[in-house]
Amino acid sequence: MKASILSIGDELLIGQILNSNTQWISEKLTEVGVQVRRQLTVGDQENEIHAGLTHSLEGVQFLIIGGGLGPTHDDLTLSSLSTYFKTPQFYDEEWIKKVEEYFVSRKRVMSENNKKQAYLLTGAIRIDNDCGTAAGQHLQHNGVDIFVVPGVPHEMKSMMERYILPFIQSKTIPSGEKILKRTLLTTGLGESLLATRLQSFVEQIKKDPRFSLAFLPNNISVKLRLQMTSKNTSDTTDFKNACNQLIQLCGEDYYGDDPSTLEEMILKNLRSKNQTLALAESCTGGLLSHRLTQIPGSSETLRGCLVSYQEQIKTDELGISKEFLKKNGVVSEGTSRLMAEAIRKKWNTDYALSTTGYLGPQGGDAFATVGTVWMSVSGPKGTISRSFQYENHRERAKERASQSALDLLRRSLIDPGA
Amino acid sequence: MKASILSIGDELLIGQILNSNTQWISEKLTEVGVQVRRQLTVGDQENEIHAGLTHSLEGVQFLIIGGGLGPTHDDLTLSSLSTYFKTPQFYDEEWIKKVEEYFVSRKRVMSENNKKQAYLLTGAIRIDNDCGTAAGQHLQHNGVDIFVVPGVPHEMKSMMERYILPFIQSKTIPSGEKILKRTLLTTGLGESLLATRLQSFVEQIKKDPRFSLAFLPNNISVKLRLQMTSKNTSDTTDFKNACNQLIQLCGEDYYGDDPSTLEEMILKNLRSKNQTLALAESCTGGLLSHRLTQIPGSSETLRGCLVSYQEQIKTDELGISKEFLKKNGVVSEGTSRLMAEAIRKKWNTDYALSTTGYLGPQGGDAFATVGTVWMSVSGPKGTISRSFQYENHRERAKERASQSALDLLRRSLIDPGA
Repeated sequence: MKASILSIGDELLIGQILNSNTQWISEKLTEVGVQVRRQLTVGDQENEIHAGLTHSLEGVQFLIIGGGLGPTHDDLTLSSLSTYFKTPQFYDEEWIKKVEEYFVSRKRVMSENNKKQAYLLTGAIRIDNDCGTAAGQHLQHNGVDIFVVPGVPHEMKSMMERYILPFIQSKTIPSGEKILKRTLLTTGLGESLLATRLQSFVEQIKKDPRFSLAFLPNNISVKLRLQMTSKNTSDTTDFKNACNQLIQLCGEDYYGDDPSTLEEMILKNLRSKNQTLALAESCTGGLLSHRLTQIPGSSETLRGCLVSYQEQIKTDELGISKEFLKKNGVVSEGTSRLMAEAIRKKWNTDYALSTTGYLGPQGGDAFATVGTVWMSVSGPKGTISRSFQYENHRERAKERASQSALDLLRRSLIDPGA
Repeated sequence: MKASILSIGDELLIGQILNSNTQWISEKLTEVGVQVRRQLTVGDQENEIHAGLTHSLEGVQFLIIGGGLGPTHDDLTLSSLSTYFKTPQFYDEEWIKKVEEYFVSRKRVMSENNKKQAYLLTGAIRIDNDCGTAAGQHLQHNGVDIFVVPGVPHEMKSMMERYILPFIQSKTIPSGEKILKRTLLTTGLGESLLATRLQSFVEQIKKDPRFSLAFLPNNISVKLRLQMTSKNTSDTTDFKNACNQLIQLCGEDYYGDDPSTLEEMILKNLRSKNQTLALAESCTGGLLSHRLTQIPGSSETLRGCLVSYQEQIKTDELGISKEFLKKNGVVSEGTSRLMAEAIRKKWNTDYALSTTGYLGPQGGDAFATVGTVWMSVSGPKGTISRSFQYENHRERAKERASQSALDLLRRSLIDPGA
């Protein structure tokens, strides 16, 4: 079964909003066995919405339409659907009551313009919004199930999870065929080198029409998605074997299955051994700590983080003397070692991770150029350090440095010799 | 002049990659006066790419095609373009030499499969890649300029900035008409309440066909985009007046023009007065520090950040006694005040900002439920605190808390009484 996703909004076409909704919806549809055939975005004009509908309805069984349900004058989705499908709008008294209750429960005042959001499509099933004021809609047209959801991400997600995904799943009739899928996460090796290492595996997979393998690189890792169309139970063994073979070939560069993260793997490992972690960041500026604290329960393991952004803080808080910094450089193996060792001792943790670098665009000194980052892991068996040279692109280098630092810690934790 | 953006990649359709490229390209095209008519994404299959091309070429003068130029077997963009436009591929000796040089200069080894990337389209102009191995292409078809770029964001951006945008700009012939545009950033008020406050302005704008106003809300702010189609120079005064009127109506909720950020406004304000800042974060876990250190030159102003994630660190590093925490609660006005005041004193800064809260999904105590966040700003004239109640959604609440905390600091800095 196939689906289209149609996003409506000038703010998307002019690039002011990142369309993360479409990614999320695509992932969820894929998970329930629906193949997303296309993702289309059009503007807030009736004729563009109509053209988008015609294209999106082509060759699919499901269509998810998002955006343009707000209370302002540029929200035209429902009126455009009304003219396209020749379905009149009506004032839904029941829904406006719920909207009023929503405002009362949040101790907020309802605006007059929220009433616009009560004009729904006749004959459509209303999908209630439990965290906002725009109702969703479910209509059917020429055998296609059409779902209309708000553009606000968590309102859309709630409707998808409560109503739309269960509905779609009920239609995905098991025809004796199923998709086996596993997505392996690797970090440390670029796409090309990884492809070379996996060449024989790729050749072998190509000969078997049941299998497909995709390389999905991003700034900080390469995902490997192995998929198999399975018709009989013995396929499961073949799939498992192929997965194991792939994992073996990836070696230590494989760190987990999607959607797990380096952060989760690190915290899980430390928690299982009842160990603790401290961070001393400089150039990564709190990003290591931000990433680790995205994980629920991280406060059990992560004592805290010191972002010693100015030299003075490195001296005052970590006891790294001005003379040492002058002689060795702020961005150096020595400084990064001392940072990790000092915070580990100060906060009495099992492990500590540090970073120091110049991320630019200005900066650098006789010891290190812009793009140089040193990082250290201090643990029960000593301290290890690594340096990386990134491009002069602050945000990207910061992201890459945070990934390399977390990866250095991960490798230390799984290496019995470290 | 109008454009389409066509993204190619199964990884987009299954939702494993977020399509931030399309947002970036849309923003840049809008800036050079091109209207993006549609954004379409299709999979790595020749027939889907062909259908996508047909739809994308409709009614536009420019088409940007991104993705599927990599060295692996699932990269089919160039071969599909070759069959669609009946343009044979050829082995570009010049390009493969540059790719070899690229690997040598980076002290990396070229993979055999990179050679696939030298098969370019006959008759197209090659757009060199200065930070990767996939060449771009510029071809023309029935009066449409078609640009093919890699999916790797910084490679695409470099080609856009070096070649594609200057080319497009040269075609945007000044017909005596121009677009005046300003995007105001506001934070602190939801879309509906803001719309109500601006109602008379919206009515007034509606009567003047030269103007358009859009509300662009996201999780942490509402952007207001005011646009005017201008034909004569006197329009400029009308546009300036409308902008000033809008800014007046927004009051303190307006914090700057797109693409400026709260972070930039804060650092600019502090730097102009030669003042410094320290952070003591708990629930935001380093996100405040991460956001501020994204800004080049932030090390002049931001001394550092202490993420006192565990109670022990609040006691050891900030001198907040266990008794105080027990009596008042870790998540409380008192704790947040002491955090800000302690770090300000310890690191001798002009301002300090703190956060403490429960972001869930588990947690909360007799003093504060999950979703409660207290934040304080300590400055030369004293300490102010605010609390917010967010939903039980860790990542969203963390992002909102960081925005509210930065906004509290910003308001303190512009308020002469604070």
